[in-house]
Amino acid sequence: MTRVAIIGLGLIGGSIGMALKQAAVPNLKVVGFARNPDTARRARDRGAVDAVAADLVTAVAGADVVFISTPASAIPDILRHIAAHLPQDCVVTDTASTKAQVMAWARQCLPATAQFIGGHPMAGKETTGIEVAEAALFRGCTYCLVPGDGTSPQSLNLLSRLVEAMGARPMVVEAQLHDGMVAGVSHLPALVSVALCSTVSQDVNWPLMSRLASSGFRDVTRLASSDPRMNRDIYATNRQAVVAWVDRFIAELTRLLKLVEDDEEALEQMFYRVSQARQAWLEHRYPPRDRPL
Amino acid sequence: MTRVAIIGLGLIGGSIGMALKQAAVPNLKVVGFARNPDTARRARDRGAVDAVAADLVTAVAGADVVFISTPASAIPDILRHIAAHLPQDCVVTDTASTKAQVMAWARQCLPATAQFIGGHPMAGKETTGIEVAEAALFRGCTYCLVPGDGTSPQSLNLLSRLVEAMGARPMVVEAQLHDGMVAGVSHLPALVSVALCSTVSQDVNWPLMSRLASSGFRDVTRLASSDPRMNRDIYATNRQAVVAWVDRFIAELTRLLKLVEDDEEALEQMFYRVSQARQAWLEHRYPPRDRPL
Repeated sequence: MTRVAIIGLGLIGGSIGMALKQAAVPNLKVVGFARNPDTARRARDRGAVDAVAADLVTAVAGADVVFISTPASAIPDILRHIAAHLPQDCVVTDTASTKAQVMAWARQCLPATAQFIGGHPMAGKETTGIEVAEAALFRGCTYCLVPGDGTSPQSLNLLSRLVEAMGARPMVVEAQLHDGMVAGVSHLPALVSVALCSTVSQDVNWPLMSRLASSGFRDVTRLASSDPRMNRDIYATNRQAVVAWVDRFIAELTRLLKLVEDDEEALEQMFYRVSQARQAWLEHRYPPRDRPL
Repeated sequence: MTRVAIIGLGLIGGSIGMALKQAAVPNLKVVGFARNPDTARRARDRGAVDAVAADLVTAVAGADVVFISTPASAIPDILRHIAAHLPQDCVVTDTASTKAQVMAWARQCLPATAQFIGGHPMAGKETTGIEVAEAALFRGCTYCLVPGDGTSPQSLNLLSRLVEAMGARPMVVEAQLHDGMVAGVSHLPALVSVALCSTVSQDVNWPLMSRLASSGFRDVTRLASSDPRMNRDIYATNRQAVVAWVDRFIAELTRLLKLVEDDEEALEQMFYRVSQARQAWLEHRYPPRDRPL
């Protein structure tokens, strides 16, 4: 019998429950807790959890693995609440977008014997909530795992197997390296998306321009529709890496603008080189069958 | 009988042909010309044109409307080639992404009596070629029309009717205003997309990071896969507006980064404000039924 507790039943927590329950893990029981009882009920109705717990302590009772999938800033309080009630050898993991801060919280709030493993599924949507959760969300995605100082091989193994059952690919990575890398592929793109949407939509001609904006504008600004609270937590816990990436991005954009101003030939070569780099990534990342354009 | 000539049979020229032929314009005949005869044959096979012309002069013979849908830099040569062979009152239009430069070329290369109207359908894909052309490409899109000094009401009317037949919404606009607006909603996003993809894919950790990159990275960098030659022409013909927008974008991104560094509260408020602005745009731009997320 594997007993899983999911704390926080939004897009990610709900999708974890749905993915695990569809994966035919033998003797699996998924218990869910959400601050809002309505959310927990909807999660049960959608088949994301087998049962709803009335509080955090009940949720983790007898659990083999606890997933905390709330906004990052809620994590320390939850860890403090459950610390004294965790079964021996229970694996605790989270799904926040940054890991160094979360690992520090786990060290502060949990006993030294706790099996905390930071987690980060590299999948998401700009929409939130249990309604948009889906079992296939993590299929083919990389799922980062950050072991703590006292993590046993057995704990890492158990969590890895659950991640694989969701259809994702576990990747063990150190917290600082993780945070630097996701700042580049995720937090920088989101900030750029917000800055772009902000700049353009504040223009005096926006009422007219908005009629010209089309699929290109839609896609490049998509991440500007992400949840503001979640975004705030991401940047608050990854300042240094984000600042470094934004600096490099502005330097590159400035270099590109110089070419726009005075070197068409080099500009075209740069467009070519970057499109090739993206193509290579697409081919590696997405199987040929269902590759998006 | 309405005789349409399409010069350049890639994504845009091919889609114009397919859209017009599916629109049941009475007594329509579409003749196509492409520099590469293979392209022209494939366009005929795909139903984008009724007939293929062997050269530019044959293509425009007897034409009521000529669409030039080649990369922008090829336009002046084509205008010079066809200038002496255009039927009286024949409307000539293009589909390039910038309009001030094209209007200047038309003034230089065509007789003063020519009915040149700059055109720009606000739709596209990052992929190119007749294979990805489709009749529905322009459906619901704004299609900018820039009349020349000598454009008659009859000519503007004829072209507007064809644009509406494609399912697009004609918007008559002045060239400089057009170029400034598309620099904001289209050329700035594309340059940002390229700079982002370039910055991240050159990182020493890219082989590992590329496994973490997911749908967010894919969408924000989508325009980096656009055709390098077409992109070069766009920036070469819209330098001033692009430079101004990039400057404003960098200022906004820098302001946002300051909030990341020292004002979480204001950062969250900004995320909220921008997501609301994007939501309002989405609701206005896309009908509720087939709204993309």
